[in-house]
Amino acid sequence: MKIEILNTGTELLLGNTLNTHGSWFGRQLFAMGLRVARQVTVPDGEAIREAFSEIVVRADILLITGGLGPTSDDLTREIVAETFGLELHQDEQALRILESFFALRGKPMAPANLRQAMVPTGAEVMLNPNGTAPGLYLPPRINGHSKCAVFLLPGPPRELYPMFQNEVVPRLRALAGVSEIAAVSELKFTGIGESDFHHGIDAELANVPGLEYGYCARIGEVDLRLIGSPEALAAGRNLALTSFGRHLISDDGSSLEATVVRLLREKSLTFATAESCTGGLIASRLTNVPGASDVFSHGWVTYANEAKASELSVPMEMIETHGAVSEEVAIAMAEGALQASGADFAVSVTGIAGPTGGTEHKPVGTAWLALAEKSGSTLTEKVFHPRSRKDFKQAVSQSALDILRRRLVLAS
Amino acid sequence: MKIEILNTGTELLLGNTLNTHGSWFGRQLFAMGLRVARQVTVPDGEAIREAFSEIVVRADILLITGGLGPTSDDLTREIVAETFGLELHQDEQALRILESFFALRGKPMAPANLRQAMVPTGAEVMLNPNGTAPGLYLPPRINGHSKCAVFLLPGPPRELYPMFQNEVVPRLRALAGVSEIAAVSELKFTGIGESDFHHGIDAELANVPGLEYGYCARIGEVDLRLIGSPEALAAGRNLALTSFGRHLISDDGSSLEATVVRLLREKSLTFATAESCTGGLIASRLTNVPGASDVFSHGWVTYANEAKASELSVPMEMIETHGAVSEEVAIAMAEGALQASGADFAVSVTGIAGPTGGTEHKPVGTAWLALAEKSGSTLTEKVFHPRSRKDFKQAVSQSALDILRRRLVLAS
Repeated sequence: MKIEILNTGTELLLGNTLNTHGSWFGRQLFAMGLRVARQVTVPDGEAIREAFSEIVVRADILLITGGLGPTSDDLTREIVAETFGLELHQDEQALRILESFFALRGKPMAPANLRQAMVPTGAEVMLNPNGTAPGLYLPPRINGHSKCAVFLLPGPPRELYPMFQNEVVPRLRALAGVSEIAAVSELKFTGIGESDFHHGIDAELANVPGLEYGYCARIGEVDLRLIGSPEALAAGRNLALTSFGRHLISDDGSSLEATVVRLLREKSLTFATAESCTGGLIASRLTNVPGASDVFSHGWVTYANEAKASELSVPMEMIETHGAVSEEVAIAMAEGALQASGADFAVSVTGIAGPTGGTEHKPVGTAWLALAEKSGSTLTEKVFHPRSRKDFKQAVSQSALDILRRRLVLAS
Repeated sequence: MKIEILNTGTELLLGNTLNTHGSWFGRQLFAMGLRVARQVTVPDGEAIREAFSEIVVRADILLITGGLGPTSDDLTREIVAETFGLELHQDEQALRILESFFALRGKPMAPANLRQAMVPTGAEVMLNPNGTAPGLYLPPRINGHSKCAVFLLPGPPRELYPMFQNEVVPRLRALAGVSEIAAVSELKFTGIGESDFHHGIDAELANVPGLEYGYCARIGEVDLRLIGSPEALAAGRNLALTSFGRHLISDDGSSLEATVVRLLREKSLTFATAESCTGGLIASRLTNVPGASDVFSHGWVTYANEAKASELSVPMEMIETHGAVSEEVAIAMAEGALQASGADFAVSVTGIAGPTGGTEHKPVGTAWLALAEKSGSTLTEKVFHPRSRKDFKQAVSQSALDILRRRLVLAS
């Protein structure tokens, strides 16, 4: 099943408006085991005609957004009918719905809105409880025309999303057939790079019959996506976990922070943060996860040396002797946070985000991390992420959360 | 000049990753007086071949992102060379840059990375100081082939954006014959919505001769972009500032956090944070700004009531009497942070991020903010942002930073 998306709207190409439809459709279809073969954006008006004619030859299913409004550059309905050689007629049901939309709001209906009740012969009207533009569905081989099934959908999300769920999903299921739906799996890894996968298991993955796979590299993270039959998926998963299992964050798309919160909740453990160079990012990521309050109570952003001393009891002499970016200070921060919070674990980070402040021995990008435990033991790690300030923060926060993740996995 | 964008990457179509390239390119080209005729997204691999072959027949300029990495599904380079019938050879300059990239990081270069130094005959290498994938430029009629000029660019924004400015813009100007670039101005506002602009000044902006304008609404922020002659720009700016001047964050594209850090530095003032529901996001946003350490020393993430009591001296009875989300507790948190940090200002937030924890009188989305000053006075504000957890945090952090911004602007 080759599915394409056509988003229409000049504003999507001027940079004023972010096109969120592409990824939204991707998520909806992915959840049904379907994939988008291509997504195209064109301006309002005649540009739609060219793109539409090309796609209906190529695709099995086309989802079009936008251009169903009442104004002069809303031409999708007319272009689709003309291209397929279909007559437009006024649809009684669509007209009644339009009239009641305006009546409900106590507004007069403009003559321009009458165009929105025009429907190509053989098309089905899809209700829009949230706006004036009804959707349209043109089944495959409508009046002997294209093999491609075409959905005409409104652009605004509040109109599009419910119509998609109520009207499009059931038709897509029927069109795509259950047997054709492939299984999908997303495995997230940290602490290794995309090239490690390439050297390690790429060749073996390519040999699994019926398996499609791809990587997405983020900062401090690689996502491996597997698509195929359940057997192919199991084989791919097995290869990845055999080589890189200890780097696995999740096999269900969960983020590192969500995984850490889940592990802590499962074990009824709590966690505190003592951040310098990450400036609160670790705490902020953790608190993005619903239920974080069960496991996270205290966080400190001790950006200044005085704050490290007064809030976390790091001795000033230690900072003067070893420097704020040192293993000793990282340990003292984590242990101070553990003490002050009463949590089971405390993680600390101290580093040089840049752009200034680096030295020959401690260049910009250097950070020391520590993980203190109630049991008394403290782990440390030195990392080097020479990146832009924001990317450095993200990479260091990833390293810090991963120390805790590894510790929690080991403990089970 | 027909310009098309081809974004490659399976992740862009699975819904994992929002495709921000479309609107980013739109903005960049718009600022040069150029328009995007079509934007296309395809998965990694062979799908690129079909889309590429179609576009180079149709377009004058094609900008491709992604697929320049070292892994087996990074095929853009090879597909472009094959389609144009160009040989690939190892480029000495590209190889040296790759080698030094790895040497700098003290990592061995994998054999797979050698592919990234392969260049089609006649193509120009575009430097990538931020990653391993060099960009490639294939001029029109390369070796007698397509009339279409093709740019191959890396996908990650931190690699793409600098390469676009340094390597693509000069070539685009030459190709499109853009000698003089229209002036552009971006004004950021907070505390008002896009509809305030529509009702307030849209009609007047539309009447300014030679002025093009557009809005971009973000969470807690509206950006107004003005493009035109210096006179048109001044007139547009004047209209916007007359109506909404007190909501202005910046007129140079600076973020709210950068504006707050700048204002504090200018006045040699310091600032502390006491966060509950934003979980460290305010501190993290502030510390994204280089130089934040001059003005920000102490932050607390007092997620639990016990943390509010022990770290910020909020009386437990107060929390029991008024609830953690109350004006009284917000004031006590801010004053406690002011006291403990010795800063000139301290901002506090306490609210209900959801999805659970709301009540009839304090529904999910409610937050109290306070700004305490060394002088003794304390401002408070109640906000209501019924949004998803992450959007709520962003909106509340925006409100909190804006209280301080307004206070600092007023003080000048």
